Amino acid sequence: MAERFETVSFLSDYGTDDEFVGVVKSVIRSIAPHAVVVDLTHGIAPYDVRGASLALARAVQYLAPGVVLAVVDPGVGSERRAVAVEAAEAGSVFVGPDNGLLASAVAMGGGATRAVALTDERYHLPAPGPTFAGRDIFAPAVAHLCNGVALSELGEPVEPETLLPGVLPLTRDEAGALVAEVLWVDRFGNVQLNVDPDELLVFDDPVSLSFHDRVQQARRAASYSAIPAGALGLVVDAYGLISIAANRHSAAGDLGLAAGDTVTLREADDNRVDAGVTSPVSLSATRSRS
Amino acid sequence: MAERFETVSFLSDYGTDDEFVGVVKSVIRSIAPHAVVVDLTHGIAPYDVRGASLALARAVQYLAPGVVLAVVDPGVGSERRAVAVEAAEAGSVFVGPDNGLLASAVAMGGGATRAVALTDERYHLPAPGPTFAGRDIFAPAVAHLCNGVALSELGEPVEPETLLPGVLPLTRDEAGALVAEVLWVDRFGNVQLNVDPDELLVFDDPVSLSFHDRVQQARRAASYSAIPAGALGLVVDAYGLISIAANRHSAAGDLGLAAGDTVTLREADDNRVDAGVTSPVSLSATRSRS
Amino acid sequence: MAERFETVSFLSDYGTDDEFVGVVKSVIRSIAPHAVVVDLTHGIAPYDVRGASLALARAVQYLAPGVVLAVVDPGVGSERRAVAVEAAEAGSVFVGPDNGLLASAVAMGGGATRAVALTDERYHLPAPGPTFAGRDIFAPAVAHLCNGVALSELGEPVEPETLLPGVLPLTRDEAGALVAEVLWVDRFGNVQLNVDPDELLVFDDPVSLSFHDRVQQARRAASYSAIPAGALGLVVDAYGLISIAANRHSAAGDLGLAAGDTVTLREADDNRVDAGVTSPVSLSATRSRS
Repeated sequence: MAERFETVSFLSDYGTDDEFVGVVKSVIRSIAPHAVVVDLTHGIAPYDVRGASLALARAVQYLAPGVVLAVVDPGVGSERRAVAVEAAEAGSVFVGPDNGLLASAVAMGGGATRAVALTDERYHLPAPGPTFAGRDIFAPAVAHLCNGVALSELGEPVEPETLLPGVLPLTRDEAGALVAEVLWVDRFGNVQLNVDPDELLVFDDPVSLSFHDRVQQARRAASYSAIPAGALGLVVDAYGLISIAANRHSAAGDLGLAAGDTVTLREADDNRVDAGVTSPVSLSATRSRS
Repeated sequence: MAERFETVSFLSDYGTDDEFVGVVKSVIRSIAPHAVVVDLTHGIAPYDVRGASLALARAVQYLAPGVVLAVVDPGVGSERRAVAVEAAEAGSVFVGPDNGLLASAVAMGGGATRAVALTDERYHLPAPGPTFAGRDIFAPAVAHLCNGVALSELGEPVEPETLLPGVLPLTRDEAGALVAEVLWVDRFGNVQLNVDPDELLVFDDPVSLSFHDRVQQARRAASYSAIPAGALGLVVDAYGLISIAANRHSAAGDLGLAAGDTVTLREADDNRVDAGVTSPVSLSATRSRS
Repeated sequence: MAERFETVSFLSDYGTDDEFVGVVKSVIRSIAPHAVVVDLTHGIAPYDVRGASLALARAVQYLAPGVVLAVVDPGVGSERRAVAVEAAEAGSVFVGPDNGLLASAVAMGGGATRAVALTDERYHLPAPGPTFAGRDIFAPAVAHLCNGVALSELGEPVEPETLLPGVLPLTRDEAGALVAEVLWVDRFGNVQLNVDPDELLVFDDPVSLSFHDRVQQARRAASYSAIPAGALGLVVDAYGLISIAANRHSAAGDLGLAAGDTVTLREADDNRVDAGVTSPVSLSATRSRS
């Protein structure tokens, strides 16, 4: 008998207008009534494996140890594997399709120690059609893991290095400019870039942002509420990345930015002209911790 | 003392932007702290008894035994009865308005064995107005059932055969064509028809679909991802019904189809002409189980 | 060791499309696995402290005793205090920003008996940026309270009378007319006014409603379903306030009314003319209790 788990963290693109999420949770509850399901989000855009992968990676260090169920699965019913991946260091098992969705979170959880394909039909629900693996394959696997069924019981072993990797976009330098990508636009319109605060140290304040056919300036700010009305700020967000933000206002809405867009950051022209008299503001100085 | 219940499965048209759902769950928690509430969905369109009834029927076989609370209640505060219906075979009690919402799920749970109207005010919350029966009548009834209060304590007995029946639309044959109805459009734009796979056996592939003023062709496919880009597929969905689908794309969006619409399926003309050379594809051959 | 709590009631403007809510709940579960979180709503409009305050006040008397976590926090990371406020009479502790959000609910819970600012960093999560106090400050405070950590441990004492008060708008009389305000438009389009049924007793039926540049008449009704099709009703809602409503239809949609709008109620002209022959309908007669 393997370890039992008490917590299932659940993320999907199912939305909550249909009963998909409720049915998955009902299957888990029927098989493993002691397990508590914590919904991370089900509002991932349909089929958006990348967005889901990033959301899971942002969340993973805060999850209670247990089983992590993630389902964004445009290839459901096809040859893509359904897998359970153990990350022993995190004390968790990640369950979902092998389409890159789990990769970044597993890596942040210390890496995959073992994996199986969920091929053993004794742990599936019988189903008239193959389109709802969340209900018929993933939920029972999660529940049986919670009940102490060993990972190796659920199906054929998979070499962790054959799991599909995640793709985290890197910034690149282009003639002194920093070419970045929008990772995430949150509910409040904050625009998270794949930019580490250290990468901004070479630029004075304000920083020039180019995207689509526009150029805007933004200044470093310690918090959203420190951004002047009508201005754009560059804030070190809760994940330690740079976000373009506005005060009580959607920066993404103003700028027309969405996940996946390219934003190029460079020294602002007016700043460059005045370089001799501008005292550069280092981000560590403007960054506060609450 | 009757049986105690541990699980409440909860479906409504309350949405989650208001605090309705949270208040209902708070009332249940205050009275029966041991009960776990599993939300099926609260995204049913306002007043859509039919859509809610179908969602509940799709989910019911997967629910953990316990109390099922369903509230879509345009007649709240009027003469419609508030009821609790025991389906002994399913080990569950269904609680909600007697407006047809519960009927199909109760039938799938083996049929009603006993029922009461929730008329005993000792089990109601005092309320200044009659508009929130979910909070004031249904939630306390659910919680007291979980605590082991007998069904018969909650109010006057109701003859199960007097409960309002549900209406499940049937297909009909019209000169060799199959006149079907859209039961459900899910988040992904899959269009579920009230069509059993066996009803398609008489048609070769592709099948012609007529609706509104349009005609489209669709081919059987084993899964969503097996549908060619830009084409329409007919997939046996997770409930054993035929769904019109596209690959990583909303079929309903393309076709302008919504729940309640009529779709007529018939032999595609070009297929009929070539009948001698087309090898008919039987659905059982294209249907795969995962 | 102080009292332990079993229930956390949680309201925010986080929405559920991002993983904010799931992460907050994961932090609570990691620290206090025995605590059950009941979501009130996370659909408060971004930054809408007033709307959140009203939702919390509507819900508070129905909450299970425990910790109430409310986060609508446009000033996150600024000088606004993060607080925990004990309302001993309600048996609850309210946790959130000190921006007026908690005030009405605390008052309805018998008033603040003690309060602290959440300044002790031993009870914070380390965080790279100050923008997600829900995760880094509020969630751990809530969880430690659930585990029996004393309120006074969490930070510096705050005089309850220095907490920011809530603002509940009052009606006013203007030459015999009642000038009211829309408190809330719910999912069904019901328009809750800050009007007590007693305030309507001076008017015959129908009542004239003036707002924007329009005048409409509405009649008292015992429930939504008692309102004639196409007409407007004045219903005593589930909170004991007057709501403008329609039958299976959004009154707010028809009238273009939103939270914060002004509606002036007065004797309808045609009614006034016929006063001699109209028998006034007192609200207590038309008001039913379920």
